[in-house]
Amino acid sequence: MSTEGGENALRYRRAQSVTKAEEISEKEKKARKSQLDKPVHKPRDSLFSWSSEFTDFTGLVNWGFLMLTIGGLRLCLENFLKYGIRVNPFEWIIVLTGRNEGYDHQYPSIILLIFSAVPAVICLLIEKAIAVEILSQNLGITLQIINIVTEISLPVIVLYFKGMEFSFVGITTVCMIYLVLFLKLWSYCQTNHWCRQGMRGKQYKNKMRRQSLSAPNWNQLVNAEHEQSEDEKNDLASSGLVKYPDNLTLKDLFYFLLAPTLCYELNFPRTTRIRKRFLIKRIIEVVFGVNLVLALFQQWMIPSVRNSVDPFSEMGYIKITERLLKLAVPNHFIWLCFFYLSFHSFLNLVGEIMHFADRKFYSDWWNANNIAVFWSTWNLPVHVWAVRHVYIPMTEMGYTKGAAGIVVFFISAFFHEYLVSVPLQMFRVWAFLGMMAQPPLSVLSRAAERRLGARWGNICVWSSLILGQPLAIMMYYHDYALEHLAPRA
Amino acid sequence: MSTEGGENALRYRRAQSVTKAEEISEKEKKARKSQLDKPVHKPRDSLFSWSSEFTDFTGLVNWGFLMLTIGGLRLCLENFLKYGIRVNPFEWIIVLTGRNEGYDHQYPSIILLIFSAVPAVICLLIEKAIAVEILSQNLGITLQIINIVTEISLPVIVLYFKGMEFSFVGITTVCMIYLVLFLKLWSYCQTNHWCRQGMRGKQYKNKMRRQSLSAPNWNQLVNAEHEQSEDEKNDLASSGLVKYPDNLTLKDLFYFLLAPTLCYELNFPRTTRIRKRFLIKRIIEVVFGVNLVLALFQQWMIPSVRNSVDPFSEMGYIKITERLLKLAVPNHFIWLCFFYLSFHSFLNLVGEIMHFADRKFYSDWWNANNIAVFWSTWNLPVHVWAVRHVYIPMTEMGYTKGAAGIVVFFISAFFHEYLVSVPLQMFRVWAFLGMMAQPPLSVLSRAAERRLGARWGNICVWSSLILGQPLAIMMYYHDYALEHLAPRA
Repeated sequence: MSTEGGENALRYRRAQSVTKAEEISEKEKKARKSQLDKPVHKPRDSLFSWSSEFTDFTGLVNWGFLMLTIGGLRLCLENFLKYGIRVNPFEWIIVLTGRNEGYDHQYPSIILLIFSAVPAVICLLIEKAIAVEILSQNLGITLQIINIVTEISLPVIVLYFKGMEFSFVGITTVCMIYLVLFLKLWSYCQTNHWCRQGMRGKQYKNKMRRQSLSAPNWNQLVNAEHEQSEDEKNDLASSGLVKYPDNLTLKDLFYFLLAPTLCYELNFPRTTRIRKRFLIKRIIEVVFGVNLVLALFQQWMIPSVRNSVDPFSEMGYIKITERLLKLAVPNHFIWLCFFYLSFHSFLNLVGEIMHFADRKFYSDWWNANNIAVFWSTWNLPVHVWAVRHVYIPMTEMGYTKGAAGIVVFFISAFFHEYLVSVPLQMFRVWAFLGMMAQPPLSVLSRAAERRLGARWGNICVWSSLILGQPLAIMMYYHDYALEHLAPRA
Repeated sequence: MSTEGGENALRYRRAQSVTKAEEISEKEKKARKSQLDKPVHKPRDSLFSWSSEFTDFTGLVNWGFLMLTIGGLRLCLENFLKYGIRVNPFEWIIVLTGRNEGYDHQYPSIILLIFSAVPAVICLLIEKAIAVEILSQNLGITLQIINIVTEISLPVIVLYFKGMEFSFVGITTVCMIYLVLFLKLWSYCQTNHWCRQGMRGKQYKNKMRRQSLSAPNWNQLVNAEHEQSEDEKNDLASSGLVKYPDNLTLKDLFYFLLAPTLCYELNFPRTTRIRKRFLIKRIIEVVFGVNLVLALFQQWMIPSVRNSVDPFSEMGYIKITERLLKLAVPNHFIWLCFFYLSFHSFLNLVGEIMHFADRKFYSDWWNANNIAVFWSTWNLPVHVWAVRHVYIPMTEMGYTKGAAGIVVFFISAFFHEYLVSVPLQMFRVWAFLGMMAQPPLSVLSRAAERRLGARWGNICVWSSLILGQPLAIMMYYHDYALEHLAPRA
């Protein structure tokens, strides 16, 4: 207690000047000290006054996280008091296998998952055929396009035209796997196409060189050709890299399909060993994380969504906003768990097993200062795919960067809608609109960053993330409830 | 988008090594670059892996405050939906004047407030009498003690023995003013006592010096005395300081009683002018702040407290905890407003009007790393008073620092209880126990600080602040409800 004066004197060196006139002279100080009334007052400002120049508010960060923890704890308790314990692992099994909806077996989903090998093998066969020149370049590309478009349409065709019944989890898994396969095969075909073009370019150059040299200096030509092929041989032999068309094997294709990336290349960076402790940690995370997400969903998310549909159709804006904010918290929390689970635990697990060395599945999106940076950092497999296979090829074809960016967002929006609408069997455009709203939002957040500083840009990103998703979820649930629940009431 | 690779290369310099064996040699890199399949993968770790050594999570601070804002906004909306708008300024006037409880006038409170000048004047008269030696030192001190003990007992005597009826706000104001007056008069008497003792000490020293010199060197003695009195004259004349007993005037006493401090001294540091903009800002803050606190109280606090009494007497621990946490948020928010309002706005306003230059009414308690530091920084007028008039005198009397600290907390606990129990007319010990729990809590928080670091010490302080107050409030409300509301039901 008694040391407080000394500490403060050090800490707030500048706190002692109210105005110049009040500063006590040395003589006066001495006179005050000799006083008998033990004076304790000095002219100085309050810390909140601008003139005190005090800026140490680090304790408030602790305060913020403590208030969050207390708020979270209260929400948990309120939830348990209101709904009791809803977590029921048996129900998960029922939902996952679709038994509660009267399907005793998962044949359609499982058959579709096994069948996904077929378009992959067809894709490989067409590539082979182009490579050995059974098929012409153009015919081959056309066949490949038909193949992958058929592949991505298959779940929709089976669902709507064959009229087969799927469980929600089954069809969601199928859509996700088929979408990943689509992106992978696209990358596979395009990369092989680049290799062919590159080799043809080299051959063309060599031919040109041969022609330009013509007869007079035959020796030089032979030497040149010799040199060049030596060069090439050196390159490949020393590095041990696979060269087109030696990569067109079933083993290589299936390694790519199982590897945690969407971009094909002939020689993936590999690890030399599987780190056992790393592997075990990731397995534990996946097992624990899946259970946590399912439990949060059942205990917190489903009651909140159910509660929110009434006000959404009937009540005023205040009630809607309150419900939206109430839904935002569990949704955001589940999304954070899902992010860590998928992009860190699961993809690292797969990577470790597959000896795949590139583990940059996400960048530091939590520091993103505008929405464009967020979209280019949170999901790197898709981002890298989009840049390599859509954005750069388009700009090379002469389109502007803006146009290429819009096309990327359009494709992304389409597939978001695909992943939501097909499983829900309900074609709405909320997910599509949500994605297409990103470029204008990005412009806004960039303006916020420029005008108000990086911190406010980052806050814009978090806001759109925390509030945008529950908005879309409420839209879908509202429409779903109108379609499926209203007739019963 | 396309610049992302370059930025990241800079940002995560170390992210590229999974294990030493995977590092690509320069030659291999060159070979990869010449490949036709445009490779994009490099061996690197995920950011959440320890081996990536990535630590930039500044965005999460923004996330924390955004989640807090969203949570707060939702609480506001929920509150409005549940209770409607309860803010009613007319009701404040009724509560403040006590009209709703059937008292048409505030005579007892107003008379007591005016009467508070009497003990102050008596105190001055006794001091004067001691100074001019009408009263002996010991008799004077005894009279002073009787005077201030009577003063602090007056509200209790009037309330209980005269049976007068007060409004809640009226009696709270009276208790607060009488407590402040008690502390100020204590300081006034003790400081004057120090001055007398100091002067007697000087006289004694002079006498000693005179005796020790004795006859032989009379000239020297005269010179010495001459020098000494010259010295003293210089000191006081040059600095213009008031000297005991010249300070014993009505004007000086009333300046001290109105000044924003509890510690008397003969020469307060003064400002030369009133800063008009500063004054206007503080006035606006006080007017706006009082309204805000009253509105928050009516809209948020009262419904929460009312809701919490049922579970407290009937229900289980989970329900009690949930209610406690629910009450903690508005209570803490109101306390923060109250702190700023009283210690920054109001005391600075008074200080500016009174030309009082020492504005250090609080230190940076928000950064306090243990509870002892919090108590010695949040309320500096009381802290400085306790150190100057209880702690230091006790240690000088030979008590240990620990004993002196306990006595300070005991006195503080007693006056906390006084401020709560007298207005509620209900003697419980919750406030007293709450204050007496501070020294052991302080030991605990100091242990947390030492073991877990400054951050956890700070979190301990905030926790006790956020959770301790609503606990005490619920205790009092529970007892109050049992006493006043139960019979009606």
